Amino acid sequence: MNAEIITIGTELLLGHIVDTNSAYLARRLADVGLNLYRITTVGDNEGRIAAAIREALARCRVVIATGGLGPTEDDVTRQAVARATDRPLVLDERLLAQIEAFFARRGLVLSDNNRRQALIPEGAIPIENPVGTAPGFVVEADGRYVITLPGVPREMRHLTETTLLPFLRERLGLTAVIKSRMLHTVGVPESQVDRLIADLEQGHNPTVGLAAHPGQVDLRITARADRETEADALLATMEAQVRERLGKMIYGADDETLEGVVGRLLRERGLTLAVLETNSGGGIVGRLTRTRPGQRVLREGWVVTDAQALARRLGWPEVPDRWLEADVATEAASRLREVTGADLGLVVLGDPDPGLDLYSGERGQTWLALATPADVSQRELPMAGSSKLVRNWVINAALNMLRLSCPEAL
Amino acid sequence: MNAEIITIGTELLLGHIVDTNSAYLARRLADVGLNLYRITTVGDNEGRIAAAIREALARCRVVIATGGLGPTEDDVTRQAVARATDRPLVLDERLLAQIEAFFARRGLVLSDNNRRQALIPEGAIPIENPVGTAPGFVVEADGRYVITLPGVPREMRHLTETTLLPFLRERLGLTAVIKSRMLHTVGVPESQVDRLIADLEQGHNPTVGLAAHPGQVDLRITARADRETEADALLATMEAQVRERLGKMIYGADDETLEGVVGRLLRERGLTLAVLETNSGGGIVGRLTRTRPGQRVLREGWVVTDAQALARRLGWPEVPDRWLEADVATEAASRLREVTGADLGLVVLGDPDPGLDLYSGERGQTWLALATPADVSQRELPMAGSSKLVRNWVINAALNMLRLSCPEAL
Repeated sequence: MNAEIITIGTELLLGHIVDTNSAYLARRLADVGLNLYRITTVGDNEGRIAAAIREALARCRVVIATGGLGPTEDDVTRQAVARATDRPLVLDERLLAQIEAFFARRGLVLSDNNRRQALIPEGAIPIENPVGTAPGFVVEADGRYVITLPGVPREMRHLTETTLLPFLRERLGLTAVIKSRMLHTVGVPESQVDRLIADLEQGHNPTVGLAAHPGQVDLRITARADRETEADALLATMEAQVRERLGKMIYGADDETLEGVVGRLLRERGLTLAVLETNSGGGIVGRLTRTRPGQRVLREGWVVTDAQALARRLGWPEVPDRWLEADVATEAASRLREVTGADLGLVVLGDPDPGLDLYSGERGQTWLALATPADVSQRELPMAGSSKLVRNWVINAALNMLRLSCPEAL
Repeated sequence: MNAEIITIGTELLLGHIVDTNSAYLARRLADVGLNLYRITTVGDNEGRIAAAIREALARCRVVIATGGLGPTEDDVTRQAVARATDRPLVLDERLLAQIEAFFARRGLVLSDNNRRQALIPEGAIPIENPVGTAPGFVVEADGRYVITLPGVPREMRHLTETTLLPFLRERLGLTAVIKSRMLHTVGVPESQVDRLIADLEQGHNPTVGLAAHPGQVDLRITARADRETEADALLATMEAQVRERLGKMIYGADDETLEGVVGRLLRERGLTLAVLETNSGGGIVGRLTRTRPGQRVLREGWVVTDAQALARRLGWPEVPDRWLEADVATEAASRLREVTGADLGLVVLGDPDPGLDLYSGERGQTWLALATPADVSQRELPMAGSSKLVRNWVINAALNMLRLSCPEAL
């Protein structure tokens, strides 16, 4: 069954904002088994909106329109839907009461413009909006549906989850269940992940897809079935196969983050950590301290940008001549444990020069060193500098080093 | 003169990626004076793409299609444009030679699929792609234009700037010049900025618009004229008015960043800096060290997440009972100068608990303190925690404190 999305707003046609609503709606429509045929963006113009709705209705059974439901004169989506479906606009008393209550709760005065938001095409089913002032509505015409939602992403998403999707499932008899599972890998290039699971990516149900980020690759497994238990079983079988191939490359699933996993791991093992950063600019500590376990395990985080500061912090009597070196990183990691009293010392030494470019000849190197009570492990990354991309890469590599090299227990 | 954009890709209809190309193209088309009438997104389906192009050509003079020019079987935009404009596809020998050269430079072997990328509709004007393998092309039909570009954002943008816009200007005789100037403010709520320049926002040429970010508000002034000098004059006059009203709230213009301005300011005045962060998680240092002057002025950056680490770092004999306090921040800032030898000591003390929410009753406080050789200034922010939003707010407030409170010279 086909559906179309119409996003409405002159600001979209001027490029002042990026349309993120469509991608969200597209995913959710696919989740209930609807096939998205086309997305159309038009400005706040009654005739043009109405034309787009009529054209879409001629092609498919479900048209979802977002935006243009605000209280100002510019917002003409209500009128356009009424025109496209040949109905007059009428005042919905229940919607009006809700809008009045919304304003009263906030101690605000209702204007005539706000009252306009209670107008809907005759015979439409109103959709109450508990998270904003713009209600939505559904117009049914000859077994086809025009569903109109506010354009504010938070409100649109709320109404989609609580009203739109249940409505579509029930009215259209959609029974398909689509479930997804995300597996996160780190430290392995996309091409290598791809090579290891190429045959699994050929399947149609479940499907397996890859998405690459700096130093991380995500796998999304998606299964479709008539019942939730069947979808879950399909997911579990595929996940087991993927995990058998990728093993420790996978650090977590779904909402888990690398910093969350690392923080939890150290916390469970009772290990404390000190971090000394250069070109990663505090990003390792920044990521770790976004999580509670990460905050608990971190004894101290330091950022230095030159050899003098490094030597001063570590209490070295002499400033090393060449400080961005493997052996300096190793020594610094051991020394970091001593001066902070932390169980683990993680050091990142890379030239912070913002002019270094990952895609040019001047890539530089970054040394990572992790000292534990037992030993010091070390890694070299073929990049340096302070660009966002390099920082993400270095931070992910350092967190992954903690994940893979921290001792089981002391 | 009207234009339309057609973005092509099944991944867009599945919601796997967000279409950012349209907003970019929309802005650039507006810049040359074209009026964007509609944006349509269709999947990689020859018939559907061709239908969308025909419909758009019936409505406007310029149709820009992006995506679906890759080397794989899925990519059918070439065929669709040929079908929509009733022409056969022919091999362009010059494009083929360029694709071959692109592969040869990288030591790659050209496949038959890559050869297909040199096919264009008969009579089309090829657009060479120096930054990728997918060339674009322009089909002219009855004074209307279908311009097809690759969907990879970097390639699409490059070809838009170097080929598409000059082509449109010349062929359509577009003479309008549109120029913009961005002014950045920090530390002032959007409503206050709005109140101070409300009358200036009413104008039509130049226009003045606001965009709010956490702790920052940007103003965009846009002027349209027949000649560049006129547009520049309009911008300069409006900028002077805005600056007279907003004064020191404005920290920079266009590509300038707050961290860049602060780093430069300290560097010019010969001041060094030490930073001690809690809930901002190293973000102040992270932002500063993205810039070269920021790296130079930073002596040291520390991140601590509890009172013990704070006391240890500052060499305090006793751990304070209550450490997230105004007077602790003040003392810490002074002490930070002493132990690091930096001219300025900046301290941020806020509960890093990730559970604190800016929009709930549990907002907490964050104390900022800046010690200079002369005195210690202090500020309280009504928020705490480690959420992205709070961190951005705290980081911007701290950087702004450095901007406004650092001494002229020592």
